[in-house]
Order: sequence, then structure tokens, then C-alpha cells
Amino acid sequence: MKIAQITPLYEAVPPRLYGGTERVVAHLTDALVDLGHDVTLFASADAHTKARLVPVRDQAIRLDPAPFKSDLAAHMVMLSQVLDRAEEFDVIHFHTDMIQFPMFERWADRTLTTLHGRLDMKDIGGVYERWSQFGLVSISDDQRRPLPFANWRATVHHGMPGDLYTFSPQSDGYFAFLGRISPEKRPDRAIEIATKLGRRLKMAAKVDAADKVYWETKIKPMIEGNPLIEFIGEIGDHQKSAFLGGAEALLFPIDWPEPFGLVMIEAMACGTPVIAFRCGSTPEVIEDGATGFLVDTLEQAVAAADRARTLDREAIRARFDLRFSATAMARRYVDVYADMTAKRPFAEAPLADVVMPLRPIEEPRSFGMVG
Amino acid sequence: MKIAQITPLYEAVPPRLYGGTERVVAHLTDALVDLGHDVTLFASADAHTKARLVPVRDQAIRLDPAPFKSDLAAHMVMLSQVLDRAEEFDVIHFHTDMIQFPMFERWADRTLTTLHGRLDMKDIGGVYERWSQFGLVSISDDQRRPLPFANWRATVHHGMPGDLYTFSPQSDGYFAFLGRISPEKRPDRAIEIATKLGRRLKMAAKVDAADKVYWETKIKPMIEGNPLIEFIGEIGDHQKSAFLGGAEALLFPIDWPEPFGLVMIEAMACGTPVIAFRCGSTPEVIEDGATGFLVDTLEQAVAAADRARTLDREAIRARFDLRFSATAMARRYVDVYADMTAKRPFAEAPLADVVMPLRPIEEPRSFGMVG
Repeated sequence: MKIAQITPLYEAVPPRLYGGTERVVAHLTDALVDLGHDVTLFASADAHTKARLVPVRDQAIRLDPAPFKSDLAAHMVMLSQVLDRAEEFDVIHFHTDMIQFPMFERWADRTLTTLHGRLDMKDIGGVYERWSQFGLVSISDDQRRPLPFANWRATVHHGMPGDLYTFSPQSDGYFAFLGRISPEKRPDRAIEIATKLGRRLKMAAKVDAADKVYWETKIKPMIEGNPLIEFIGEIGDHQKSAFLGGAEALLFPIDWPEPFGLVMIEAMACGTPVIAFRCGSTPEVIEDGATGFLVDTLEQAVAAADRARTLDREAIRARFDLRFSATAMARRYVDVYADMTAKRPFAEAPLADVVMPLRPIEEPRSFGMVG
Repeated sequence: MKIAQITPLYEAVPPRLYGGTERVVAHLTDALVDLGHDVTLFASADAHTKARLVPVRDQAIRLDPAPFKSDLAAHMVMLSQVLDRAEEFDVIHFHTDMIQFPMFERWADRTLTTLHGRLDMKDIGGVYERWSQFGLVSISDDQRRPLPFANWRATVHHGMPGDLYTFSPQSDGYFAFLGRISPEKRPDRAIEIATKLGRRLKMAAKVDAADKVYWETKIKPMIEGNPLIEFIGEIGDHQKSAFLGGAEALLFPIDWPEPFGLVMIEAMACGTPVIAFRCGSTPEVIEDGATGFLVDTLEQAVAAADRARTLDREAIRARFDLRFSATAMARRYVDVYADMTAKRPFAEAPLADVVMPLRPIEEPRSFGMVG
């Protein structure tokens, strides 16, 4: 299949540090190429990809030192380049929320849009109502909750390449927290869990400017003078295996409707179980008692963290390979693409059962029918 | 003429406090109504307008307490409502930068877009090249500098209603600074000018979160312990006349390509001269030696501030009324609208010289010709 992947331009594909959407686009694109598809990636020039790259900007926006930039303009320019070539592709797969809708109305049945963010936002309902002809993919069933009326075609959970992570048959006995220091990620709960158990917690986390006050007033005072807590700042991809693989469990004590939560499957890839609060996507990602524990209260979380070592780390990695590898994700997307192309009214190569006549044809016809 | 005005949705129309674009849209809209036009304003429901209001959102975005909002979605929903009614209007006048281009390609010759912001930004050139069929208005000639190739139709300087400001025949002897505390506004220069002259400076300014460090490290130390400087924080519209009218001069020591600079004409409306650094729009707005002084160095600024009292305050107000009233602005826009509607290839009421046949028609025709 000829597939175009259209990524947001905020981070490189894959991102150098933090950044979920561009990371998933990177791995989906490579996995589709590995499955034999003809994939074109529209992205900034700093992308690393197995696909044909169309560089639409010299570099990703967030780390671009240019003093004045327009993210809207950058995306509009990219989309106009995609539009000029729309005819070349069987499927145009957007990861850019909604901005492509006005430009691609003519091509809507050839497009698929994966929504990567939270959807409980004012204003967006009107957009998905107005442009309801565009098929959407959710990254968890729970993500759909605020927009039940939207044109959902499938849920496709994220996947990551298994070989990016080293399986770790046993832990070094600490708990891990990995993410941003922000109120909805509840690093305070992670600290409380470890403290109540008298166990070590390593925190690899970045502090955004927006969360500075939360860090200074709430989290830093909980860490200072607490010998159990080790704060190591933001880490890169190459450090994740060691950090997650060494953990007895990943603590994922979130308090917001997380649409997916990549770090859960990253931990699973290392064989590390996840203690997750039941919230957002976590019940879809974690299999309670197999790849981790789902909890509702801090007390349950403490008890679950204490039992984490009883779970089978090899089985956890096996579940990752089956459900959350990049190949598993790409296969599910190929299924969705196949549904789309088969349904398209003027598809060049319709499936055999679509052109099968309802009744046997008795006589040969004369108007350009072949065979 | 039937005119639609399309405003950004960040601030109320007019804004309750800070906010330039929505303020200009408010006064342009009212002035067009006063000139007898049939004007429809697409804006949030908190607008106050003489035009027919189409409320596209319950309130403006910035002060909306909803925890999660999408400005992109809000604008897309508004634009889709405008599109549904495009046929009703002779002119659709956008103040929303570029986001309307993809949706209004079919109607481009019926639209006008005023660009309100700085244009020396990476990424935007590609957009104005790609959608070059959309006619643009600059708010100063200088603003065009980074995009000389764009489809400029006119420069229309901003205007404000004269009756919003009380003319003040004499000052209270202080200098005024009004705006944001940010490096490109150069409040430090204003403080230096006043200090060198041993004269009082009143500063009415807000401090955005982004400028907190600049305020704490650079400006606050210059103010503290300096008996000449009085910092009074952000002020509302109703306080501006007293604040600006009481000043011997407004200090406008900017260091960035200000596309217009509303505060200059607000001061002029009060009869107050402006000491402006030659930068961005200031040479177009200030008439050197009449409505203020244009300077290039701090020394010139000090000398000019010292001479400000020699300028004729009544003459300054008269220049405001002539050049920068809301009515003056609306009249210039009506001229631009008239150019557009006359040039439109399928205008309902073409000008006589457009339909005049090149040669006299000798014989009556038969294929549906009338007359």
C-alpha cells in the first residue's frame, strides 16, 4: 500500500528527548516499511526514518532557536505539500489533530486521523461534528469518552520496537517514576508509596516551566531530606532500559484521563511490572495480576507495590511483544487502512467480493467489460 | 455594503483589559455601522457592538476559566459558521492571520485580511506565498518589510474613537510609560530618560508570566529606591485618559519592529506628545516636531523629552482626529472594500465601464441575452 504519514512538527521524528506523538509516528512508519509498504513521511528534516522522507521544515519547532516561529504556519505549509501530492497515496494518515480537515475535505475518504491527546477540551466537539466525514482512530477506548459521537473507526494502542529495550530478568530493588513533574502525574503519590514501604524510589522526570511552582512548593520539599528518594532529572532513550529494567515496579499513580501512557509499555518491554491507578487508559494497557496491578487508593497501591516482585518478568515481556510491539501496532493500522481502501467508492483495485455480481452474468457484455 | 467582521477569539470585543486586535475590531465595526453599513460581527458572546453579533463562543478564550480549551478548534468552528453564510456578504474581513485561508479559497476575492502582528517570523512566508490569492492589509508600511512579495492591497493605520479619550489642555508634569514590562518595550530606557532629567515617571504596565524574570532581575531593581519612579500596574480603559492626559509626554522607547503601537495614538487623543524611538511604525505615526519627537539614541530621547512641553497639545489632538480616529480608519477600509467589490469578476452590480461593449452591437442576439 502507498501510505503517507503526517506528523506534528514540534519534535523530531523520533524526538531527541521527551515527546510521545512523534515517537509513535517514527516507530509506526518504520514498522510499516518493515511490513513491505511504500511509506512517505512528511516531517522536519531531522527525522530518522526507513521511509521516504519529505522534509517540510529544516528542523523540529520546539528546539529550533529561531526567536519567532509560527507553529500554525509550519503545519499549513506542510499540509499544502501533502495536498499537492494527495493523489499519489492510497492512505493519508494524519497525526495532527484537526488542522488538516478544511484542506482535505475532497480527500476525506482517503485519510485517517489518529488523535493522540486528551479530548476533554472545550471547543473541540464542534470540530469533530462539523468535519464528521473524517475517520478517526483513538489510542485507547477510554480516550473516546468525551466525544462518543465522533467518527471512530478503530482503537489502536501504541506500540514500541521491542529491540529498543533490554529485557531485565531481575530488578535492582527500587521503584521507578518516569515522566513529567506535574500535578496530574501525581509524583507525590509515588513518593508516599515508597516512603510508606520504606523502599527506594528513583525519579527520572523533567520540570516544565509551567510546573515550576508545583515542583518548588509541593514536590521538592517532599524529596529534600528524604534518603529514600533519588531525583535524577530528564533521561534520554538510551538510558531508559537501564532505568526501567532495574526497577522492581514502575509507579504510575496518575490522576487524569491519560489517553495512552507510553511509559507503561516501555516498562513492560524491560520486564518491569506497573502499579497503575485505574484511570484513563490504564485498565486497557495493564492486565491486573499479570503485567502489573490496577489500584484505586493509595493503600491498594502500597500493597500492590509490595507484591510487584511476585509477578513473572518474562511473562510481562511476552505480553509486551504480543500486544505492544511496533509491529503489532502497524498490523492493526494496516487492517484499518484495508477497511478504508475497500470501502472507497472509486478505489482503483476493489476487493474481489465487492465486484462479484449479485447474479451470474448470462451473456457477455459489450461495453468495455474485461473478461 | 454588507460586511462581515471576523475577530480573533482570545479577548472580548472590545477587551476588558489588555489586547490590541480585538480592540481595533470593536471600534472599526462600530464606525462602519455609524457610516451606514450593514455589519455582522462574528465574535464571542461577551462582545459589545453596534453591529449584528453572531456569538460563536460563550466567552473569550483568555479569561475563560475552563481548564482545557483549544484555540484552534474555537477558531475553526467560528470559521465554519462564517463559511456557511459567506454568500450573504459583499466583504468578509478577517483579523485572524492565516487560519481562514484553506476554508475560503472559493471565496478569496470576497475576503480581506488585516494582519495585526509582527511578520518577521519563521514559517509564515510560505503561507502567504501559497495562499497569495487572499488580499492583505498591513497596519503600517513598515510591517510589510519581511514579506514584500505578499498580496498587499493597502496600509490602513489603526484608529480609535475620539470620545473615548478626554483632551487634557495641560499636563501634570510627569512622563508616562504604558504597556507591558518586556525587553522589547524597553522600560529601562524610560526609567533612564526620566532619571537623567530628574523628572517623575509613572509606569502603568502589566508583567506577563513570560517576563517575570526580566521584571525581577532588571526593572524592579531600577525602580526600587528611585523616588522618581511610580509603578502603578495594569490599568483599564477608563483610567487611560487621566493617566495619559496628565503626562507631559508618553515615552515610547521601543526596540522592536512594532507593527503599529496603539498607545501612541491614545496619547495623541489626550493631547500628549510622544517621544518615540525610530523603529517599526513610529515614523509613520509620529510627525516629528508636531505630535512628538522621533529619536535614535538615549541622548536624543533625553533632549526630546525635555522639549516635549513646547509642543501644542491642541494641535496634537487635531492630528489625532484627522488621521487616527476610528471613523478615519473605517473610511479607509471602505475605500479598500469598494476596490475589491468593483474588481470582483462576477460582482452582482458591475460598474458601467466594465459591461460597456467594446464595439456597438449591430444585431440583436438570440441566446438568452437580455435587452
